Amino acid sequence: MSTPWRQRYAQRMQWMGSSMIRELLKLTARPEIISFAGGLPAPELFPVEEFQAATDRVLSQNGCSALQYSTTEGFMPLREFLADKMAAYGIEAGPENILITSGAQQAIDIIGKMLINPGDRILTEQPTYLGALQSWRAYQAEFVTVPIDHDGLRVDLLEEVLCSGPKFMYILPNFQNPGGVTLSLARRYELIEIADHYGIPIVEDDPYGELRYEGEHLPPLVVVDNDLMNDTGATYDSYGSFMRGNLIYLGTFSKTLAPGLRLGWMVAPKSVIERAVMAKQGMDLHSSSFVQMVAYEVVKDGFLKQHVQHIRTVYGERRDVMLAAMARHFPPSVAWTRPDGGLFLWVTLPEGVDASVLFEKAVANNVAYVPGIAFDPLNEAVNTFRLNFSNAQPDVIEEGIRRLGSVLTAELAGQHELIYAAG
Amino acid sequence: MSTPWRQRYAQRMQWMGSSMIRELLKLTARPEIISFAGGLPAPELFPVEEFQAATDRVLSQNGCSALQYSTTEGFMPLREFLADKMAAYGIEAGPENILITSGAQQAIDIIGKMLINPGDRILTEQPTYLGALQSWRAYQAEFVTVPIDHDGLRVDLLEEVLCSGPKFMYILPNFQNPGGVTLSLARRYELIEIADHYGIPIVEDDPYGELRYEGEHLPPLVVVDNDLMNDTGATYDSYGSFMRGNLIYLGTFSKTLAPGLRLGWMVAPKSVIERAVMAKQGMDLHSSSFVQMVAYEVVKDGFLKQHVQHIRTVYGERRDVMLAAMARHFPPSVAWTRPDGGLFLWVTLPEGVDASVLFEKAVANNVAYVPGIAFDPLNEAVNTFRLNFSNAQPDVIEEGIRRLGSVLTAELAGQHELIYAAG
Repeated sequence: MSTPWRQRYAQRMQWMGSSMIRELLKLTARPEIISFAGGLPAPELFPVEEFQAATDRVLSQNGCSALQYSTTEGFMPLREFLADKMAAYGIEAGPENILITSGAQQAIDIIGKMLINPGDRILTEQPTYLGALQSWRAYQAEFVTVPIDHDGLRVDLLEEVLCSGPKFMYILPNFQNPGGVTLSLARRYELIEIADHYGIPIVEDDPYGELRYEGEHLPPLVVVDNDLMNDTGATYDSYGSFMRGNLIYLGTFSKTLAPGLRLGWMVAPKSVIERAVMAKQGMDLHSSSFVQMVAYEVVKDGFLKQHVQHIRTVYGERRDVMLAAMARHFPPSVAWTRPDGGLFLWVTLPEGVDASVLFEKAVANNVAYVPGIAFDPLNEAVNTFRLNFSNAQPDVIEEGIRRLGSVLTAELAGQHELIYAAG
Repeated sequence: MSTPWRQRYAQRMQWMGSSMIRELLKLTARPEIISFAGGLPAPELFPVEEFQAATDRVLSQNGCSALQYSTTEGFMPLREFLADKMAAYGIEAGPENILITSGAQQAIDIIGKMLINPGDRILTEQPTYLGALQSWRAYQAEFVTVPIDHDGLRVDLLEEVLCSGPKFMYILPNFQNPGGVTLSLARRYELIEIADHYGIPIVEDDPYGELRYEGEHLPPLVVVDNDLMNDTGATYDSYGSFMRGNLIYLGTFSKTLAPGLRLGWMVAPKSVIERAVMAKQGMDLHSSSFVQMVAYEVVKDGFLKQHVQHIRTVYGERRDVMLAAMARHFPPSVAWTRPDGGLFLWVTLPEGVDASVLFEKAVANNVAYVPGIAFDPLNEAVNTFRLNFSNAQPDVIEEGIRRLGSVLTAELAGQHELIYAAG
C-alpha cells in the first residue's frame, strides 16, 4: 500500500501542472513582444489616486487595526458591502454568507481543500480556467469535460458525462475564460434543472460578469436556482436553505478594481462558509487587514459602479479593435469567438495545426498568445489559442494582430502547399 | 476502498481542528476582559507614519505595478532585501532561495501541500504552534512529539521517536510558541547531527528570533547545519547543495513590522523554492503586490533594525512586569517558563488541574489565556496554559495577572480542601 514518498512527491508535483502560463508571462517582459497572453487588466485604468486617498484615510484613522491581525472571515464592513453588492446583482446574501479570500484563486483552492479527495472527478467546461485545474490537480482531482459553443456549455451533452459521477461542476457562465462565450439564459435554466435532478453541486466562477459590453445582463446561476425553486413551490427561510448547499458563487476585485490587491470572495450557505473559514485559517490565517480596509475605503461610496462603467467603455473599444483587426488580417480558415464582455477571445485553427508549435513562430515575430491546450483538462485542444484584449492599447492591438495575421497566413499557406505537394 | 465522501468530508473537517484559538479570540473583543490569549503584537508600536509615507511613495511612483498582477515568487527587491537580511542573520541565501508568502502560515501550508501524504507522521515539539497543527491536519498528517524543557526540545529523547519514521521535524528554536523556551546551542548541534544521521528534514520556524531581550543570539539550525558540514570536510558550491534539501527556514514580518500585512518568507534550496512556487500559484497566484512593495519601501533603508530594537525594549519590559507579577500573585504550586525573548510564556499547574475547566472561571473573572491542550498534538497537556505578554500595557498586565492569581489561588486552595475533606 505504501508508495515510496519520493515517487509520490514527484507525481504530485506533476499534478500541480507545468505552469505554462507562468512561463509564458515571463516572455511578456521582453519589451519588443506584443503579448496577448496574459490576463492582465489595463494598468492605466487603475484608480491610483483613489487608492492614495483611501490609504491615507485608513492609516490616519484606523492605522492600528489595518496593521493588526484580524478575523479569518474578513473585514466586516467589506463583507456587508459585498452582501449589498450581491443583492444588487440579484443574489440574496448577508455578510454571514460571504468569506473574503486572497483572490478568487484562493476561494478555488479552499473548495479543493474542502471537497476534493484523490481520484474525485470534477466536471468542467472544455476549455476552462487554468488556475482551477492547477489548484485542483494538487488535490489529485480528475477532470471530465463538456465542450462549449457560442452559447456556452453544451448542456445537451451534460447528462451523459454526469454518469461518471462528478463531485461538482465548475462553470464560468459569463464571458468564459478562455472561451469568451456566455451561457445563454435558456441553458442556465436547463443546467440548473439537470444539476438539481442529479443533485450535483455547482461552483459558479464569475470574475467578469460586470464587464459586459453589449447585450442584456443574464441572471447568475444562483439566481436561476432560486427562481426555479420558487416555481416548484419549495419554501425557504434563509439564504442557507435558499441555496440548499448546492451552489457556491465566486467573485473578485481583480478585474474591476486591481488584481495586485489579491481580494476575492466566496458566497455560499452559512454552513459552507463556516467550513471554508476553518480551511482558510490553516492556509493564511486571514487576508491582509490593510488591503481589505483600503479596498473598502475605495469602494464604499459608490466609486466602483462608475469605475466599472469606465472600464466597460475602454475594454469594449479594445474588443472591437481586436475583432476588426482579426477580420482584416487572419486567413479565412481561422475561426474565433465574439465575446459580449470579459477579457478574452478564443481562436480555432484548421484541424491538424498545432498552436503550441506555432507559438514559437509567433514569438519569433514578436507577438504572443496562450496555446489552448493549457486550458484543456484533457490536452486535446491542440489547434486553439487564447487572446487577451484588455491589456494593450488599441494601436498596439492593431499591430499585434497584424503580426499574428502574418504568422497565421504564412503557416496556413505553407500547410496548403505541403498538402498540394504531397498531392 | 471507497469511503462515502460525506463521511470523509466530515472526517477532514475534524482534522482541520476546532479552532480553539479562534473562538477564544472572540472573547477578547469584550472590553472588560484582559486577554493574554492572543498572539497579538502591541498595536501602539506599529509604525503607522512610516506606512503612510511608504504607501504614498509606492502609489505615486509605481502605482500601476503595485496594483497589477505580479510573479508568484514575490517582489524581487523585497526578495533581495530578505536575502541580505538572512545573510546578516548568518544564513547564506540569494533571492532565488526566497519565496514571499502570505504570512509564514502560508509557508507552513505550502510545506504541507508539497510534502504530506495522508497518514504521514510529522515530528513536533510538545507543545507546538497551533497553526501548523491546523494546516497539516487538513493534509491528514499524524503527529509524533518530543517534549520540551527549559533548554527546548529534549534532544536526548529524539532518537526513540524517530523510529516511527517521521517525514520531517518541525522545530521553533527561539522563544518557542507556546513554550517560550529556547533550544540551547549544544542541543542545536546534537539535533542537526541526529537529523543528518537519520536523513530527516527539518522545518525551522523562526517568527521571534529577532525579539531577544536577554542572553546571546544563537545561530539558526540552518547555520549549525552548514557549520557541521564544514567540519566534516563536505564540499558545497551553492546554497542549494549547502542545505542539501534538508532544511527549510521560515521567517515573517508579523512580529517585527505588522501582522495585518500577511507577509512571510521561506528560505530553501532553489529546487525546493521552485516546487513551492508551483504550489503557491494554485493557492493564491501571488501575495499582494501592493503590500509587498509598501513593506519593502518601509524597510529598505534600515528602518527595520531600529524598529526591532524599540520593540525589544518595550516587550522586554512587559515580560519583566508579567514575571514579577506572577511571582507575587501565583500560588507556589504553579510553575512557569522564563523566556529570553518572543511573545509567550508557559504555565504548568499541579497534576490533575484542568486548565480548560479553569478557563471558564478565569473568564468569569475577566481574564483570559489559552489552555495548553490547544497546542498539544496528542491532547495531553491538560494542566498547562499559555500567556502572551506583548499585547497589553504594563499596568494592564499587572491587573490581569492579579485577577488570574486570585482564580488560581481559589482553585488550588479549593482542591487542597477537597483532598483534606476526603482524607
